[in-house]
Amino acid sequence: MKSEFQFINSIKDRFSLSEVGDDCAVLPKDKDSDLLISADLLVQDVDFRLEWSNPADIGHKSLAVSLSDIAAMGGTPLWGLLSLAVPKSLWNDDFLDNFYEGWHFLAKKHGVELVGGDISSTTGKFVIDSIVVGEVPKDRAIRRSGANPGDHIYVSGTLGGAAGGLRLLETSQIHPKLHLIEKQLRPAPQVELGKQLNALGIVTSMIDISDGLSSDLAHICRSSGVGASINIEKIPIDPNLAETFPDRDENLELAINGGEDFELLFTVSPEDADQLRSLDVVSIGTITEHTDILEIFQKGNTKELRPGGFRHF
Amino acid sequence: MKSEFQFINSIKDRFSLSEVGDDCAVLPKDKDSDLLISADLLVQDVDFRLEWSNPADIGHKSLAVSLSDIAAMGGTPLWGLLSLAVPKSLWNDDFLDNFYEGWHFLAKKHGVELVGGDISSTTGKFVIDSIVVGEVPKDRAIRRSGANPGDHIYVSGTLGGAAGGLRLLETSQIHPKLHLIEKQLRPAPQVELGKQLNALGIVTSMIDISDGLSSDLAHICRSSGVGASINIEKIPIDPNLAETFPDRDENLELAINGGEDFELLFTVSPEDADQLRSLDVVSIGTITEHTDILEIFQKGNTKELRPGGFRHF
Repeated sequence: MKSEFQFINSIKDRFSLSEVGDDCAVLPKDKDSDLLISADLLVQDVDFRLEWSNPADIGHKSLAVSLSDIAAMGGTPLWGLLSLAVPKSLWNDDFLDNFYEGWHFLAKKHGVELVGGDISSTTGKFVIDSIVVGEVPKDRAIRRSGANPGDHIYVSGTLGGAAGGLRLLETSQIHPKLHLIEKQLRPAPQVELGKQLNALGIVTSMIDISDGLSSDLAHICRSSGVGASINIEKIPIDPNLAETFPDRDENLELAINGGEDFELLFTVSPEDADQLRSLDVVSIGTITEHTDILEIFQKGNTKELRPGGFRHF
Repeated sequence: MKSEFQFINSIKDRFSLSEVGDDCAVLPKDKDSDLLISADLLVQDVDFRLEWSNPADIGHKSLAVSLSDIAAMGGTPLWGLLSLAVPKSLWNDDFLDNFYEGWHFLAKKHGVELVGGDISSTTGKFVIDSIVVGEVPKDRAIRRSGANPGDHIYVSGTLGGAAGGLRLLETSQIHPKLHLIEKQLRPAPQVELGKQLNALGIVTSMIDISDGLSSDLAHICRSSGVGASINIEKIPIDPNLAETFPDRDENLELAINGGEDFELLFTVSPEDADQLRSLDVVSIGTITEHTDILEIFQKGNTKELRPGGFRHF
């Protein structure tokens, strides 16, 4: 059975679709800038649960995931569209008003205006398609495909918090660590950092961590025709995980495969590395020539890392 | 209970969203052109049924409805995005390949390239969000809001065929009138006509007939702050309906309230009317000063027409 990534690649190859496969499509806008368009589906019981998210949380997250895609290209978000397939059971109260309040609060912070979309009833689950349109200086969108052997690999912020929050929610431990739950329900897209990185002009490839560090690093490696070696000691595990989950191996697993932190993962040539000094990013490894091979290095031992993030199919 | 139109209007008013409410959002692109973006949700068992549509039909229709939105603004479609929430039961065979073949065949005809989207699994119904991005000469997008009292009201093609096809499918009469079924399953968006009308520069308002003539005319009236009077004898009923459904009143009802014909409904000042002579359009009535009132005129009698097209809520 094909994974969703294999299906997308097969369609892409068969019909020569050059723009499919990055975080956003990059399209010509005007003489100074390119257009970025991102679409993200959020499906009830796959991407969120009504039992543990209020409608404003879901509105926030719908926009956050798309803003994160714009951030991953180093762009500026401008406009949003929302397509909602709404079960009749959710139509009857102020669910949608609150959903939109959550969307709008984050939108305002980033200067994004709602310009369109669609609403349909459904006899199935609540489905949201969040579309964000942005722009980036001409020919300056940062893609997944530019990583070179020898480049250092960086991540912003800390990892594993959103997955830790999900684990708490799944086991109904909603009280102990609000920070982790906040990371899961109200992720903060790294739009400003993405723009700063783009302005530096030194980033060779970038992606946001939505599926998980291992999966998203594999996407960069596949697009760039390279491999990667990660130093396990360097992975910035969310410090709040340690207080809640005492097992360090479990926390590492959350940080490596958990996903949904919406931090930025990117590569920079070693000679440009000192330009990153003032930013909240850490180097976790190096790009290698071993196409599509991810290695993980710990105390003198190297072993292969299999992409273990979330897959739909 | 609010209808979906009331919800959209309430959000629009509360947050001063000027771009929401037309067939497409109109956004600045470059010095010569504006960007058009349309999003359309198609939900299994609401907008299509797997029992009577093959996957390529669904792919075709997904794109057709969005191309029709671009046509309604007088624009040129350029790029498409597809977001698909796919039940696991449809993932296992070549369903998606065939769906995409149907999309791609129509896309090629209109010079549209797939540039992005998203795929998610769902435990609910198959949901498609079809997004099309296009362009239109600067400040020349034709909106719903420009109709003036005295303008003539026109429709392209014929009406009621798609609704007749749906009725045949619902009652399992798939054989007798292929034309009607084709109208329902494989609608033809009026992109060329929309561009021709825009080039003439005389159209004061336009919409595509997706919800139904009465509903879509009501949208124009509400946006323009006017009313409309329709001559029932002038409504171009699909000639194939008469052969299948002998009751003329039933056919009129299908033509007035049926929807999904994806023909263009537009208004033109009487002094410009002769410029339409070479086009496949007919005048069906006149815009009036009676805000939000639709009247229908037959053999000397005038009565009020209530918008009777499809509503989700």
